[in-house]
Amino acid sequence: MVYITRRERFSAAHKLSRKDWTEEKNYETFGKCSNPNWHGHNYVLHVTVGGEVDSETGFVVDLSVLGDLIKEKVIVHLDHKNLNLDVPFMRNIMTSTENIAIAIWDQLEEEVKEIGGQLHKIKLQETENNYVEYYGGK
Amino acid sequence: MVYITRRERFSAAHKLSRKDWTEEKNYETFGKCSNPNWHGHNYVLHVTVGGEVDSETGFVVDLSVLGDLIKEKVIVHLDHKNLNLDVPFMRNIMTSTENIAIAIWDQLEEEVKEIGGQLHKIKLQETENNYVEYYGGK
Amino acid sequence: MVYITRRERFSAAHKLSRKDWTEEKNYETFGKCSNPNWHGHNYVLHVTVGGEVDSETGFVVDLSVLGDLIKEKVIVHLDHKNLNLDVPFMRNIMTSTENIAIAIWDQLEEEVKEIGGQLHKIKLQETENNYVEYYGGK
Amino acid sequence: MVYITRRERFSAAHKLSRKDWTEEKNYETFGKCSNPNWHGHNYVLHVTVGGEVDSETGFVVDLSVLGDLIKEKVIVHLDHKNLNLDVPFMRNIMTSTENIAIAIWDQLEEEVKEIGGQLHKIKLQETENNYVEYYGGK
Amino acid sequence: MVYITRRERFSAAHKLSRKDWTEEKNYETFGKCSNPNWHGHNYVLHVTVGGEVDSETGFVVDLSVLGDLIKEKVIVHLDHKNLNLDVPFMRNIMTSTENIAIAIWDQLEEEVKEIGGQLHKIKLQETENNYVEYYGGK
Amino acid sequence: MVYITRRERFSAAHKLSRKDWTEEKNYETFGKCSNPNWHGHNYVLHVTVGGEVDSETGFVVDLSVLGDLIKEKVIVHLDHKNLNLDVPFMRNIMTSTENIAIAIWDQLEEEVKEIGGQLHKIKLQETENNYVEYYGGK
Repeated sequence: MVYITRRERFSAAHKLSRKDWTEEKNYETFGKCSNPNWHGHNYVLHVTVGGEVDSETGFVVDLSVLGDLIKEKVIVHLDHKNLNLDVPFMRNIMTSTENIAIAIWDQLEEEVKEIGGQLHKIKLQETENNYVEYYGGK
Repeated sequence: MVYITRRERFSAAHKLSRKDWTEEKNYETFGKCSNPNWHGHNYVLHVTVGGEVDSETGFVVDLSVLGDLIKEKVIVHLDHKNLNLDVPFMRNIMTSTENIAIAIWDQLEEEVKEIGGQLHKIKLQETENNYVEYYGGK
Repeated sequence: MVYITRRERFSAAHKLSRKDWTEEKNYETFGKCSNPNWHGHNYVLHVTVGGEVDSETGFVVDLSVLGDLIKEKVIVHLDHKNLNLDVPFMRNIMTSTENIAIAIWDQLEEEVKEIGGQLHKIKLQETENNYVEYYGGK
Repeated sequence: MVYITRRERFSAAHKLSRKDWTEEKNYETFGKCSNPNWHGHNYVLHVTVGGEVDSETGFVVDLSVLGDLIKEKVIVHLDHKNLNLDVPFMRNIMTSTENIAIAIWDQLEEEVKEIGGQLHKIKLQETENNYVEYYGGK
Repeated sequence: MVYITRRERFSAAHKLSRKDWTEEKNYETFGKCSNPNWHGHNYVLHVTVGGEVDSETGFVVDLSVLGDLIKEKVIVHLDHKNLNLDVPFMRNIMTSTENIAIAIWDQLEEEVKEIGGQLHKIKLQETENNYVEYYGGK
Repeated sequence: MVYITRRERFSAAHKLSRKDWTEEKNYETFGKCSNPNWHGHNYVLHVTVGGEVDSETGFVVDLSVLGDLIKEKVIVHLDHKNLNLDVPFMRNIMTSTENIAIAIWDQLEEEVKEIGGQLHKIKLQETENNYVEYYGGK
């Protein structure tokens, strides 16, 4: 078993805020992340795939195929978007880094199988000081 | 003359879009940066101040004083904000990296004089692949 | 189970040197790290906490609460200090990166439980070329 | 069990290309990585070693001894070399990042035991956007 | 005058070696960089363009146009290539970082004028420990 | 004129404190940087040298010669040392980043001439959030 990781990036707006709470309660809970007019981040995504090394190519999976898959299934839906408003697979989900990472896992798990690998980890970095890691298996 | 630089960061939402243009013309000109529902970035700001070295302290300016100044005059107004909607000193200005850098210069130029230095450069990084540098003197 | 990591930094002096050894034996064992007048580092600390995602907030733990905890229990005791002389919880401990990481774990393990998470890993980077990871369970 | 990691770097040329395939099939499979006249990378290597902390020194293993070992057994053979032509332990192996990581593991596994640690992971970064991790146990 | 910088990357093989010198003299002068079978690097290129800020767009130049220009005129010719053998505009030039930077300047100077900017600086980084800066005006 | 930069690093202890001031006044002026038992940093040094490109080698100066020079004249005196106590060329000088940068310039200016270049800039980074640049000409 060898693990290979592809890094991709997206820039997006979001806020942490529940519609069923008052603005005051949102601010109390989420602080400046609840700013009604949104804020945003340069997210850095690391997708790690495990598998056997193919004896002909020396690859676990073809990285350019993996990169295209991540772009098609994830990046194009998140980059230069509003995570709360524009993303079908984030509907009605709090856009915490934790939940974005889980949603990305769900977008990729089956797709990675089809290119011959096994999704191992989603790492999502929101700022230089925080990131989330998710290994599936909710 | 010695130059000292303080790095600070802010995360904000914005879009590139003119109200006097159609959505189509905005998209044609600004591409995905014109997304109507906003997007965002982790901006990295470098403020460079020049001056003589004080013989008693060895400082051009006291970095913690400079840091507090940048936080008070710039960061608190931009961090976790919408640059198009929430920032008094960005009103009616296209929120390109170029214009944000110039606006930050204008916020700091006089203030830096008062702590004994001379503002030399504003460097503002929008993503890992692009940044703007401004030396004043429009 | 989702893992969330908070990065914090501290700058400190230390040396690797045993009082029960001669200066020669210390130099032979620890090389330039035994310099009698100390040296120092910008340490980078990554604290990883695991837990379930709260369905209301989308959080494993509140990152700003975790950040405050790390600052109060760890950073304030280590930053701009001498690790051999100034830190109550490092008394009589060789200040190797390994031992500092373990001491930080011990400071945080119970505290992290009280904010609803489970301490998973302490990663401590001493220079750009070396770091230590500790998962508890001595 | 504590894990300590040493980072080292090497710059090398290589290509992904099988002699038993036509140039066309190599291009179809490996794209621009099959360029007949080679290309190259600044590889970044992270060697992670696990072990008990020695009560006298506070070390899992002596990092300068580990660094010298990596330089002698790995870096001197790969740095400023052609990975396909110049490296005895890469003969007849596709020079994918996966295979280089496995070959480095094989060079170090026994050697690390002799300095009192246990090789835990080889992480090899080819570009800022991709890296491989290998934990042994083919 | 505001300066905007676009970062791009390319991975290439090269060697420092003169055909009119013996292998011994090449080794004496260029050390391991003269390895006959080549070595390689991940080069990082920063292209800085100066100009007035357009009052309608807020841009010095359109960064995506600048990025496309750099890719078309520079990156496509250097990425996954052998700098000594495969690059028309590097023929008969020693492939030192200095000379590559100058050659990139020559490829871009006129082109940047046509998109309304003025090429200000080429910064080319060969490894994390060295880089070259060139402002034109040989 | 082309500029080439060599990056080197050193880890050192220091404090900001004047012997002719009380501990209280030192704390008032220098804050936690005045800690009597020292603190320390991983300093990152960038030495930039300008010159003509040699037509035979393609070099401004030979980077390995420049690297050795920096190590011999600067790094060996500062690395794993106490900047206030152990460094002959820092005697009686406040160890602010500004003053260390100037002292490094003075160590290198003449030496760089002897290898055929002209010292252009000393950049010294104390933490990820602050650095000093000095171009000579006190």
